[in-house]
Amino acid sequence: MNSPLTVAIVGATGAVGQEFLSLFESRRFPVGDLRLLASARSAGRKASFMGTEYTIGEATPDAFEGVDVAFFSAGATRSRDLVPAALAAGALVVDNSSAFRMRDDVPLVVPEINLDAVPKGGKLVAVPNCSAILLLMAIQPLRSLGTVERLIVSTYQSASGGGAAVMEELRESTRAFLEGREYAPKAVQHPYAFNLFSHNTTVGPHGANEEETKVVEESRKILGMPELKVNVTCVRVPVLRAHSESVTVEFAGPAPSEEAARAALAAFPGVTVVDDRDANRFPMPAEASGQGDVLVGRIRQDASNPNGLSLFLAGDQLLKGAALNAVQIAEALIERDGI
Amino acid sequence: MNSPLTVAIVGATGAVGQEFLSLFESRRFPVGDLRLLASARSAGRKASFMGTEYTIGEATPDAFEGVDVAFFSAGATRSRDLVPAALAAGALVVDNSSAFRMRDDVPLVVPEINLDAVPKGGKLVAVPNCSAILLLMAIQPLRSLGTVERLIVSTYQSASGGGAAVMEELRESTRAFLEGREYAPKAVQHPYAFNLFSHNTTVGPHGANEEETKVVEESRKILGMPELKVNVTCVRVPVLRAHSESVTVEFAGPAPSEEAARAALAAFPGVTVVDDRDANRFPMPAEASGQGDVLVGRIRQDASNPNGLSLFLAGDQLLKGAALNAVQIAEALIERDGI
Repeated sequence: MNSPLTVAIVGATGAVGQEFLSLFESRRFPVGDLRLLASARSAGRKASFMGTEYTIGEATPDAFEGVDVAFFSAGATRSRDLVPAALAAGALVVDNSSAFRMRDDVPLVVPEINLDAVPKGGKLVAVPNCSAILLLMAIQPLRSLGTVERLIVSTYQSASGGGAAVMEELRESTRAFLEGREYAPKAVQHPYAFNLFSHNTTVGPHGANEEETKVVEESRKILGMPELKVNVTCVRVPVLRAHSESVTVEFAGPAPSEEAARAALAAFPGVTVVDDRDANRFPMPAEASGQGDVLVGRIRQDASNPNGLSLFLAGDQLLKGAALNAVQIAEALIERDGI
Repeated sequence: MNSPLTVAIVGATGAVGQEFLSLFESRRFPVGDLRLLASARSAGRKASFMGTEYTIGEATPDAFEGVDVAFFSAGATRSRDLVPAALAAGALVVDNSSAFRMRDDVPLVVPEINLDAVPKGGKLVAVPNCSAILLLMAIQPLRSLGTVERLIVSTYQSASGGGAAVMEELRESTRAFLEGREYAPKAVQHPYAFNLFSHNTTVGPHGANEEETKVVEESRKILGMPELKVNVTCVRVPVLRAHSESVTVEFAGPAPSEEAARAALAAFPGVTVVDDRDANRFPMPAEASGQGDVLVGRIRQDASNPNGLSLFLAGDQLLKGAALNAVQIAEALIERDGI
């Protein structure tokens, strides 16, 4: 339907970059010319897309000439350095990094929730933190049932959040463990085989790590609820590519019934309810991996608080937590604003 | 110091049974005669203790003649069947199963918290659920700082809670995954390699699984707080033998300061505070494994509630979560009541 676009991926060799290519194909994203960009170190490598081989180019400020849509997923420093050039070239920029997320003039978007935060013709959109996206996909549907006041969240985050090197470290250190070999951690600070650890980002003076601060601040911005109370503990678990979260939602009054919550979640685009008590089948990262939808289950009244509702979710960190959310943003804006 | 006792282990070939033998040796438990008992299937196998080889006997009602202390760790059905015989034989019975935990006439004991629940000369003591023990080791010290009203807990439970077969399944299914082989789950219902799932116990009508119900009911009984509010979500993670828990404690008034909480936890026997924000070093199951102490860290004010304090803990499920707690109970009663 759409005329082909010139599309750039910055960070094309990373774990999220690879997912962009799969999504372009499976969703028939209107790719005409494709520019796969990465650091100088990765430039020159090859990647294939729909049967054509591409050479990875170096991501430099002059690489965006003629680009219609640029997806950035190469870290905040790279985005700070290169997004201005992409914008100057007239591209729609969808940025997966944290560089611009909290800037007042940059919309932070989960399309099912707040696409309207992007002004008509807006050219820079930030993709939220993966844990925040997955969490809010389960929270937004519940807002139709009552006033959400507080979220209490413990995460079970996968290796993919740290990128391809951390996924490889999980595999390799586990292999070494099973073979009785020593393995010196390289990509993460702690042993990862059959182990878990508090999220490996800097811890601030009040005891929250950067990941937790992102979840709190970004949730408030996306939902437009600056007063939302959020208690979050972020933990890295030995899972490859889907995050899970244990969530309790507190409402201003009595919590909605399980049935109402289940129905609201099931009706929300991008959410699949997996909540079979008889079969003991609930959201699992193994099932969420490779799926666009966020799986939500264990939906139940909070026995400790009449205003509380608890649930458990799992979602693919690389898809809805990153690449898919970015592609959805671009698709929606192409449709709406006719880039 | 103590005169040697005749000691029986029921479930001697299980994961917890093995730990009893190590603990008897490392703690110089006064073992004279040792009877290693198990199901008919395991009877006849050999086990060694302090250089002597023992033949596993079948656990039958007449196996307890002359036994001074019997440790049971072979499941609730076996305990229901055989504990009466052990009591009739005059043994002190320390039962790791759930069979008697909630009976009004049976004390449920974490020795650091409520040894005095055992009447002088009491002969049957129940060991709590592993997740409850580890949780309460972190809660009890905080009770000196304020009135605890509510606990909000998400667990990260290891394979060992399901026994040796589940630990083996985690290793074997992970090996198969890394080698690209199919693996059909046997010991647990779900794929376990690099995956996690809601605790594999029956889910009741209100949505809580049996593990969660145990944590709620047993916490109330051990702390003597029948009105304690508890929200708990129990999750099995791909870790071998230590459980972790993300905990928020709500007090009746303003939460104690981080410093006061840290000091109270550090002073409590059986707790080691691991809370180094600069080094990003907090409790991890890899470090808790093989340790008697429960590791507690991430101690911080709950940013969503002035009455809340959050923390993260890790403890060896087979040790303080089971065998060590049982041996400590026996040691304390031998000392106190002079068996």
